[in-house]
Amino acid sequence: MVKVGIIGATGYGGVELIRILLNHPNVKLTAVSSVSFEGQRINDIYGVFNEIIEDVLIPQEELIDRCDVVFAAVPHGLCEEIGRKCVDKGKKLIDLGADFRLSDEDSYRIWYGLNYSDKQLHELSVYCIPELHRGDYKADTMIVGNPGCYPTSIGLAVAPIIKSVDPSSIIIDSKSGVTGAGRGLSQTTHYPECNENFSPYKVADHRHTPEIEQTLSNLAGEEVIVTFVPHLLPVNRGIISTIYAKLKGTLTLEEIHTIYTDFYKDERFVRVLPLGKTASLRGVTYSNYCDISLHLDSRTNRVVIASAIDNMVKGAAGQAIQNMNILFGLDEGEGLNLIPPAI
Amino acid sequence: MVKVGIIGATGYGGVELIRILLNHPNVKLTAVSSVSFEGQRINDIYGVFNEIIEDVLIPQEELIDRCDVVFAAVPHGLCEEIGRKCVDKGKKLIDLGADFRLSDEDSYRIWYGLNYSDKQLHELSVYCIPELHRGDYKADTMIVGNPGCYPTSIGLAVAPIIKSVDPSSIIIDSKSGVTGAGRGLSQTTHYPECNENFSPYKVADHRHTPEIEQTLSNLAGEEVIVTFVPHLLPVNRGIISTIYAKLKGTLTLEEIHTIYTDFYKDERFVRVLPLGKTASLRGVTYSNYCDISLHLDSRTNRVVIASAIDNMVKGAAGQAIQNMNILFGLDEGEGLNLIPPAI
Amino acid sequence: MVKVGIIGATGYGGVELIRILLNHPNVKLTAVSSVSFEGQRINDIYGVFNEIIEDVLIPQEELIDRCDVVFAAVPHGLCEEIGRKCVDKGKKLIDLGADFRLSDEDSYRIWYGLNYSDKQLHELSVYCIPELHRGDYKADTMIVGNPGCYPTSIGLAVAPIIKSVDPSSIIIDSKSGVTGAGRGLSQTTHYPECNENFSPYKVADHRHTPEIEQTLSNLAGEEVIVTFVPHLLPVNRGIISTIYAKLKGTLTLEEIHTIYTDFYKDERFVRVLPLGKTASLRGVTYSNYCDISLHLDSRTNRVVIASAIDNMVKGAAGQAIQNMNILFGLDEGEGLNLIPPAI
Amino acid sequence: MVKVGIIGATGYGGVELIRILLNHPNVKLTAVSSVSFEGQRINDIYGVFNEIIEDVLIPQEELIDRCDVVFAAVPHGLCEEIGRKCVDKGKKLIDLGADFRLSDEDSYRIWYGLNYSDKQLHELSVYCIPELHRGDYKADTMIVGNPGCYPTSIGLAVAPIIKSVDPSSIIIDSKSGVTGAGRGLSQTTHYPECNENFSPYKVADHRHTPEIEQTLSNLAGEEVIVTFVPHLLPVNRGIISTIYAKLKGTLTLEEIHTIYTDFYKDERFVRVLPLGKTASLRGVTYSNYCDISLHLDSRTNRVVIASAIDNMVKGAAGQAIQNMNILFGLDEGEGLNLIPPAI
Repeated sequence: MVKVGIIGATGYGGVELIRILLNHPNVKLTAVSSVSFEGQRINDIYGVFNEIIEDVLIPQEELIDRCDVVFAAVPHGLCEEIGRKCVDKGKKLIDLGADFRLSDEDSYRIWYGLNYSDKQLHELSVYCIPELHRGDYKADTMIVGNPGCYPTSIGLAVAPIIKSVDPSSIIIDSKSGVTGAGRGLSQTTHYPECNENFSPYKVADHRHTPEIEQTLSNLAGEEVIVTFVPHLLPVNRGIISTIYAKLKGTLTLEEIHTIYTDFYKDERFVRVLPLGKTASLRGVTYSNYCDISLHLDSRTNRVVIASAIDNMVKGAAGQAIQNMNILFGLDEGEGLNLIPPAI
Repeated sequence: MVKVGIIGATGYGGVELIRILLNHPNVKLTAVSSVSFEGQRINDIYGVFNEIIEDVLIPQEELIDRCDVVFAAVPHGLCEEIGRKCVDKGKKLIDLGADFRLSDEDSYRIWYGLNYSDKQLHELSVYCIPELHRGDYKADTMIVGNPGCYPTSIGLAVAPIIKSVDPSSIIIDSKSGVTGAGRGLSQTTHYPECNENFSPYKVADHRHTPEIEQTLSNLAGEEVIVTFVPHLLPVNRGIISTIYAKLKGTLTLEEIHTIYTDFYKDERFVRVLPLGKTASLRGVTYSNYCDISLHLDSRTNRVVIASAIDNMVKGAAGQAIQNMNILFGLDEGEGLNLIPPAI
Repeated sequence: MVKVGIIGATGYGGVELIRILLNHPNVKLTAVSSVSFEGQRINDIYGVFNEIIEDVLIPQEELIDRCDVVFAAVPHGLCEEIGRKCVDKGKKLIDLGADFRLSDEDSYRIWYGLNYSDKQLHELSVYCIPELHRGDYKADTMIVGNPGCYPTSIGLAVAPIIKSVDPSSIIIDSKSGVTGAGRGLSQTTHYPECNENFSPYKVADHRHTPEIEQTLSNLAGEEVIVTFVPHLLPVNRGIISTIYAKLKGTLTLEEIHTIYTDFYKDERFVRVLPLGKTASLRGVTYSNYCDISLHLDSRTNRVVIASAIDNMVKGAAGQAIQNMNILFGLDEGEGLNLIPPAI
Repeated sequence: MVKVGIIGATGYGGVELIRILLNHPNVKLTAVSSVSFEGQRINDIYGVFNEIIEDVLIPQEELIDRCDVVFAAVPHGLCEEIGRKCVDKGKKLIDLGADFRLSDEDSYRIWYGLNYSDKQLHELSVYCIPELHRGDYKADTMIVGNPGCYPTSIGLAVAPIIKSVDPSSIIIDSKSGVTGAGRGLSQTTHYPECNENFSPYKVADHRHTPEIEQTLSNLAGEEVIVTFVPHLLPVNRGIISTIYAKLKGTLTLEEIHTIYTDFYKDERFVRVLPLGKTASLRGVTYSNYCDISLHLDSRTNRVVIASAIDNMVKGAAGQAIQNMNILFGLDEGEGLNLIPPAI
């Protein structure tokens, strides 16, 4: 059994990790930590956990001692320090935040306003959307930079076709459920203001942009700059990314579909939908699936790709557990056969 | 492995059975049936099942032959015929509808407008909210009348206190999510008319009334007549029942709480919340739990009980599987450790 | 033209007053005030007002000087001070809060934890649900205690039948949209926690209880004690109150209906629905109507009354304007012919 | 007073016309018609209209006789016949459907599968988004082809900038509330399947495409072909269109903003938001406004335009009334000063 702890256990990423890990056959959840609620029980904060898990939230140091691997679901800028403590104690870290996602420190500085101060940690780390990067794990990997929700939905959607499209033509219009904004309160996410409302936000200015471009550039073998506009969707969970790109040459929709089904033929968590079907949140929420539907605007020779994930699962906790499975040599899908409710 | 089939697999009860049964360790789902969609694949109707279950919907007769037990999630009035076929072939039946719920045929006639035409079947059947009636199973039980959603939420909430309240004083105000109305289309459940709306329906005239009264009368040892008013709640899942009753004598809230915690001390699916907490849908949705919170209006000497269940799980598919577990001598909670998502 | 100012203009009560007053033919909205946002423009806080009203939020003193009547939509405990300033300057005050609702100071002390310190003001004030209390205005009335949302929905629903029911049997199960909780942030009203959720709150312990009992006791001519349980409903607007009471004698549903239609035959804002219909939020939201539907549980001889209002209009701003119209001798419905959207 | 009748009065377009027209100072609503509900009262279908409007739904012929102008809110393909009857009787017609929107009959044939069979009617008709086309009215105009909801939101958003962008680069990602799908029932709009769901539909294949291109081509003075992808948004009302286009040269965001504020400086229903603000549904629902926010992706030299309308008002009934005002020489905004609720 892998002994697991969660730092930031009372945030939305944290509680979703708990939900999934409690049913993972090879995991023992040994400790939960929270700066805000230290000393309280997790079920005092989330009544849903009554009689299921009633652990006291303990300090980080103590948590690290009790685990083989630490999941950290905390704001960016905090995970180098946590990572150093883990590495020094021989423990592994899976960071659900942004501190180990960008290989280019300049990008991190520009978009997050911080430097990498403990550079050795970054050499011990891997950034991994498993379906695209599982080969990047090394023998000495101690830290996983778990990908962002938007970049996951977009990287998986564009990867198979990237070499067949004009890389300067990619436009990404994403829509995310409100859990993506986290547990923190704001006027924007106050029920009466969010409900029956919809709008774009951080237009062409969202921090996930460099991460998206890093993945696509690596796949393309050349620099890819995208236009990325996220929107706040009045649902709890899920991301739909609608992606537009100009085909370099001519491909039929059937040919495009074959490119995708070939690319993902061995992947259990990516479902390339049959032609004629359209990706939807309902298809994936509460599960680790990424659904992709393919469309062709033959009048303009643009491919339109729609991808759907649950931002809390494939976009956060589920993918983090998928990475943990890889890191510990378990079957990659262990604990993740979550069936999306049909209604 | 118990071989299981589902008749009415494309209704909401049916697809929820699929979701849970696919992860049940002692079950093999061998067949699905649907009159409306016979010959099509279940994933053509619900894309959510792509690459998970892609079975063709087959005729009922064929399904019965392939199974040890049949779940029927069909409109009332159809299950005597299905039950006869099952019994004649030595197969068991769990009816999620109303045909085997009422022991008094007159009640069935009055509220459902139909007679019992195959009376022997009713002798082979049991009505069972497991926490209240699991002792009613007999050696020759072949059919389970799985309880209705409202009666489950109410029976569990009132059972412990029934002898301490005036039985003529019970008023039940229930609120149900829209899946309770099923997959069939109606103006009432058309999104723009249901969304941002709320109202009572079938005021003091809902078919679940005699079933509620049957359970409470049996527990009270005297006839109980209730006022029951359901409301349509603009959420997908869940029922909150708020129940009012006059105490016969004087009890403190702490004493009431102790009555409940004693009554349910060995039950894994009923959670009596700590005093000061309030039952909510969030606590139970997607799980088999029934949460109960207790309140005292000392100004009027009324106890107020709030209970929460997921109408699709504890109110239908989950409880049906709990009954199947009993029927086949399995651990009663097998396959049902569904953790309610915290968000 | 009546010159009007709004104190607390950036709260939900305040912005709803703005919406309605801007189309009132006899009103000039001369000033808006807000402690939190003083010096900013109202449209900076609510973009919806761009190019419609772009007034700067000014201090209270200045506002009072500019108006004939002040609407105050502020937390309880603040309106005696505002009332004193208004009265001293000969200005009238309509308080949307609780400071002038309870005629019994003890009740105010018990439920709100404060005393009445400026008693003369209370003699100059009236509490008024217009359909029930418009006769209570006096020549020297300077202050209106505008009724609470729940008490309005309940008082109107019970008034016609109060003398025909057992006053000790009244149980009120109310459900309110989230705007009822105001603009202030809380975990309970954070979108992901409120959405797809439902629960009772302040069970038999809500501050509107004494106000409900004051209205019903006055109508009954004897002390009425009720059980009142509110619930938080995941919609933006509206209150449904479902009310249960034991009939003293025997009345047919038709007789009950006649009692109501007679009682409200001259009222334009109370609609007694035809028998067979059920009150719903959709019928009243964004309007000043109170819809009432009548039901009889003949098995228990209980009448069940369902009433629907928009908590922001008939439950707050609309009724306040109705009171202003009375106070200034205008047609009572002036500015209030708001047609509820059918979808 | 203009005497007005509504054909298709029980559809969503019809009831929204009723809501607005009843408060129009220069209009008398003299008749309502519905094929499905002929002989019933409008308030039997929509209880919201009780005591407000209780007219019997009469046959079309009779309605036309009673009116000066007919609004038709019926499926496409039915309005040539209605138009002929109106014209022959000297009555005017405002068609909320598609039969008089496309000047190119071939487009109508390709996208709608029908021919224009009564060509003279089309010569008497005008297609009019008032802010763009009010100059197209002629002395003999008898019929208005009222624009579609998506084309309105897009035409207004792109018009000012069309000559400054590469016309082949325009990508439009629109999201519409569910009233856009109308009153007719479907599995897609069944509450439990629509709620907490989201997906694109008719990807690059929506019938509004030629209407969008007609408007943009006329403005550009050259053929414009766009990629247009609509999405179904789980809210009742509103459309957000997010539009991407490559700038031909270099413009600062301030310059772009000036282009828009100049273009719309005399328009009361188009609000160009201040830089830094973002268009949202909340800003416009229940009103006739179109809000536009402007954004620049300087990394790719793309302008991003977000526009918001209420699909039922500016996208249908409101704009139809705006057109009626023009047609009858009334002030264009008469009856349309609908203030969007702030919450």
